[in-house]
Amino acid sequence: MSGSPGSGPAPRWAADDEHDERLARAAWSALAEPGDPVAGALVAALGAGASLRLVPLAVRDGLRAAWAAVVGAQPGDLPPPGGVRVERAVERWALRLAQVDPWADLAAAESAGARFLVPGEPGWPSGLDDLGPAAPFGLWVRGGAGGGAGGSTTSGRAGGAGESTSSGWGRDAGGRTDRSEGGCADAGAGLGELLRRSVALVGSRAATTYGERVAVDLAAGLVDAGACVVSGGAYGIDAAAHRGALARGGGTVVLLAGGVDRSYPAGNARLFETVVSSGGALVAEVPPGRLPTKSRFLQRNRLIAAAAGATVVVEAAWRSGAMSTAHHAARLLRPVGAVPGPVTSMASAGCHRLLREGSAVCVTDAAEVMDLAGLVGTDLADEPAAERRRGDGLDPVASRVLEALPRRRGAGTEALAARAGVTLGEARSALGLLELGGLVERDVWGWRLLGS
Amino acid sequence: MSGSPGSGPAPRWAADDEHDERLARAAWSALAEPGDPVAGALVAALGAGASLRLVPLAVRDGLRAAWAAVVGAQPGDLPPPGGVRVERAVERWALRLAQVDPWADLAAAESAGARFLVPGEPGWPSGLDDLGPAAPFGLWVRGGAGGGAGGSTTSGRAGGAGESTSSGWGRDAGGRTDRSEGGCADAGAGLGELLRRSVALVGSRAATTYGERVAVDLAAGLVDAGACVVSGGAYGIDAAAHRGALARGGGTVVLLAGGVDRSYPAGNARLFETVVSSGGALVAEVPPGRLPTKSRFLQRNRLIAAAAGATVVVEAAWRSGAMSTAHHAARLLRPVGAVPGPVTSMASAGCHRLLREGSAVCVTDAAEVMDLAGLVGTDLADEPAAERRRGDGLDPVASRVLEALPRRRGAGTEALAARAGVTLGEARSALGLLELGGLVERDVWGWRLLGS
Repeated sequence: MSGSPGSGPAPRWAADDEHDERLARAAWSALAEPGDPVAGALVAALGAGASLRLVPLAVRDGLRAAWAAVVGAQPGDLPPPGGVRVERAVERWALRLAQVDPWADLAAAESAGARFLVPGEPGWPSGLDDLGPAAPFGLWVRGGAGGGAGGSTTSGRAGGAGESTSSGWGRDAGGRTDRSEGGCADAGAGLGELLRRSVALVGSRAATTYGERVAVDLAAGLVDAGACVVSGGAYGIDAAAHRGALARGGGTVVLLAGGVDRSYPAGNARLFETVVSSGGALVAEVPPGRLPTKSRFLQRNRLIAAAAGATVVVEAAWRSGAMSTAHHAARLLRPVGAVPGPVTSMASAGCHRLLREGSAVCVTDAAEVMDLAGLVGTDLADEPAAERRRGDGLDPVASRVLEALPRRRGAGTEALAARAGVTLGEARSALGLLELGGLVERDVWGWRLLGS
Repeated sequence: MSGSPGSGPAPRWAADDEHDERLARAAWSALAEPGDPVAGALVAALGAGASLRLVPLAVRDGLRAAWAAVVGAQPGDLPPPGGVRVERAVERWALRLAQVDPWADLAAAESAGARFLVPGEPGWPSGLDDLGPAAPFGLWVRGGAGGGAGGSTTSGRAGGAGESTSSGWGRDAGGRTDRSEGGCADAGAGLGELLRRSVALVGSRAATTYGERVAVDLAAGLVDAGACVVSGGAYGIDAAAHRGALARGGGTVVLLAGGVDRSYPAGNARLFETVVSSGGALVAEVPPGRLPTKSRFLQRNRLIAAAAGATVVVEAAWRSGAMSTAHHAARLLRPVGAVPGPVTSMASAGCHRLLREGSAVCVTDAAEVMDLAGLVGTDLADEPAAERRRGDGLDPVASRVLEALPRRRGAGTEALAARAGVTLGEARSALGLLELGGLVERDVWGWRLLGS
C-alpha cells in the first residue's frame, strides 16, 4: 500500500483535495463504519472534505482547535459539538486514518470494473437519502451501466476527461480518475434506472425448497411486470430471488456487505458475474477489498430497505437478518410484505410474526407484490376466478327452489314451495326461470332436477 | 304423522297453547326457514305464541283482520306492518302450517335424546342474541348435559315435573314434555357452559393433510388451554377439529344444518356419537328429521360465528362456506383468525385473502388463538425462544470487536480497534469483557478468538 500514489499521511489530501467531495466521500466510506451516525452528521454539516480535514487536525491539536481551524473558515460558524461523542468518534477514525487511501480504493474499483457513485450524481438512488445521517457516503457500483463494465469505461473515458481537470489530483491519478468519474455517471444512471421500479425480496439463508421456489416465482413474475429485484446475494432466498430475475432476463441488484470485488459468499461468485453481465449491479458502501462483518451485514440491510420501493420477506426465522431488513423498511415507511408458509415450518415463523404484528401485508404472488409496491396502481391483483357452480347467479329464492327439487320422481309446485320455504308465486316464477336455464324438467308427478 | 297426538290443523295450538312460548318457538323453528328475518321480527314484536296465532288467521281473514284480532288484544296496539313483505311471508308460512307439529318434533327429539332450548332458559348461548331478528327461535340440543343424554333425562324428570303442570298441554303430552322441559334446562346449562369459553375452527371439506393436521393440533391445544372447539361436523377441517378436541377428552360442539337426529354427513355418524358421549353437543335450529339444504348450511354458518367466542379459518378455498362463517363473525365483531399455509396451495387461498384484506389475524398455534379469543388475557402467546448464539447479549462495541478478532494468529489491540471501527479504550474494555466471557485468548501476537 505504501507504494501506491495514494499512500502517505492524511494531510496530503487534507491539503490539496479538500474541495474534492467525491474523493473525500470515498475516504469517508473507508474511514467510518457503515451507518456511523456521527460521521454522517459531520459530513452533512461541514461537507465531506472539510470534515475529513477536521480529523487529522483534531487528532493533533484537539477537537476545539481543529473545529476553529476548519469550521471557522466556513460560512456561518457552527459551534463545536459538545460531549464526548464526536471526540470518541475522532479517536475511532484516527486509528484508521493512516490506512485510508481513496486513490488506491478507486484504483481497485477501476480494475474490478466498478465505479464510485456519490449523492446527487445522475442516477443516485434517491431512496437512500431517506436514511438521513445514516445514509452511505457513496456507493461502489459494479455493472448497472446497461452495457456492462467494458462499455461504460469507454464511454466514461470520453465524457470524464473534461470533469477531471478540475480535480486537484488529476496530476498523479488523472487517467484512473477520468475513467472512474466518467464510468461513475454511467453506472449511476444504470443503477438509478434499475431501482426506480424495484422490490426487495429477502429471506433466510436456511431456506426451504418451498421458500426458494416461491422466491424464484415471485422474482420472475416481478421481472415480467417490469420491476427490478433487489436482494443481498446470500445463499437461500436471496440467491433464489436473483436467479428468478435472471431467468427472465431481468436486471437485478445485489447489495453486498463487503467490497464489490469480493464474492461473498464464494459459492455465489458465478451468480454475481451473471448479474453484472446481465445488466444488473453489485453495490456496496464499503470500498473494494473490505470484508463483510456481522455489523456490516446488519447495516447492509438498511440499504436494501432504503434502495428498494418495497420489501417482501419470503421466508425468515423468528430472528433473522431478513426481519431486520423488514423493520428497517417499516421505519422508512416503505411497504412491507410477507409471504405466508406452513405454520409447521420454522422458516416461515418470521413472516407469520410480521403478519400477526400487522407490520407486513400478506402477499402470495407477483401481482400482489406489484400492488403492494404501488408500481401498478391500475392493474391491481385480481381475484382468482372462482369455478362456476350449478345454479350460480340465481337469486336466493330460485336457488332455494333448486335445492328443494327432487332428483328422481318429480314434486308438485306447492310441495316444492313448502319445502323451499317460499311462496307459491315465488316457486312458480323460480321454476320457470330454472326451466329456461335447462336445470329442471317436468315429469308426470311434477318438477325434478334435470341431468344431475 | 296424522296418528300422533300433535297432528291436526294449526288452530289446535293457536287455541289453547297461545301462551306457551316454548311450544310456539318449537313451531316457528319448523314453520320458518332458518334466518327468516320477517319471522324473527314478528316473534320479537308479538312473541312467538301471538305471531303463531296470527298466521292461520291471516291466511283465513287476511293480514289486517288477523292483526287486529291478535295485536289488538295485546297491550300497546302495534300498527299492522305495511308492504307486501309480511303478506308474502305469511303466504310462505301458510304452505307449511298443516305440516307443523311441535309435539311430534319434541317427541322425536326426546326419542333421539335431544332437548329443545329457547332464549332466556338457563345456559342459552347469549352470543346468539347478537343475531337480532336472525337469531334462532330455539335450539335442538343433543348431549351437552355433561353426563350425556341418559343422565340428563333422569335429572330432567325430577326437575321438570313441577314446571310442566303450568303447561296447557300437559294433558295429552305431559309425560313427554316433562322430560323434554326438565332435560332442556339440563342440556342448556351444559351447552352454555361449553360455549362460554369457545373457539370455532372451520374450513374446507376438501382439506389437505396439512390443514387437517393443523386443525387437529389447534383443537387439542385449545382443549388443553380449557377452551371448547365449535365446528360444523363436515368432512375435512371440521371433522379434524372435532377429533382433535375429543383426542384430548374435550367437549366439542357440532352445529348441524339438518336435524340433530340425522347424521349428516353419514360418514361422521360415529364421530357425532362420540361427541355426545364425551360431554359435547350436537345442535341444530331446525327440528329433528329435517334435511340439511344449501341455504340451511349457509344459515348454519351464522350460528357457528355467533355461538363461538372467536372464529378461526384453518383452510378455505377462495370461495367457501368457511369464508362465509368468517364474514358472519366479522359482522358480529367477533375476533377472526386465519391460519396461513403454502401460497402454492389453493386450499389456503381463502385464509390468505382474509389476512390480505385485514379481516383476519394471522394465527399459527393454539396460544395465539386463545390470545385472539381474549380467553387468556394474561397468558399471551409467547415468542418462541430464539437459539442462543456466540456473543449474544454483548453491547454493539464488544460484538464488533468480537467480529474483528482473528481465529488463528492473534492481533494487537490497536489493529483490532481499527478493524472494528472502535476507539482503543472501547477495544480494551471489550477485550477484557470477552476474555472474562471465555470468548478470546492472548497469544504471542495479541488477541484471538478462543475455541472457534
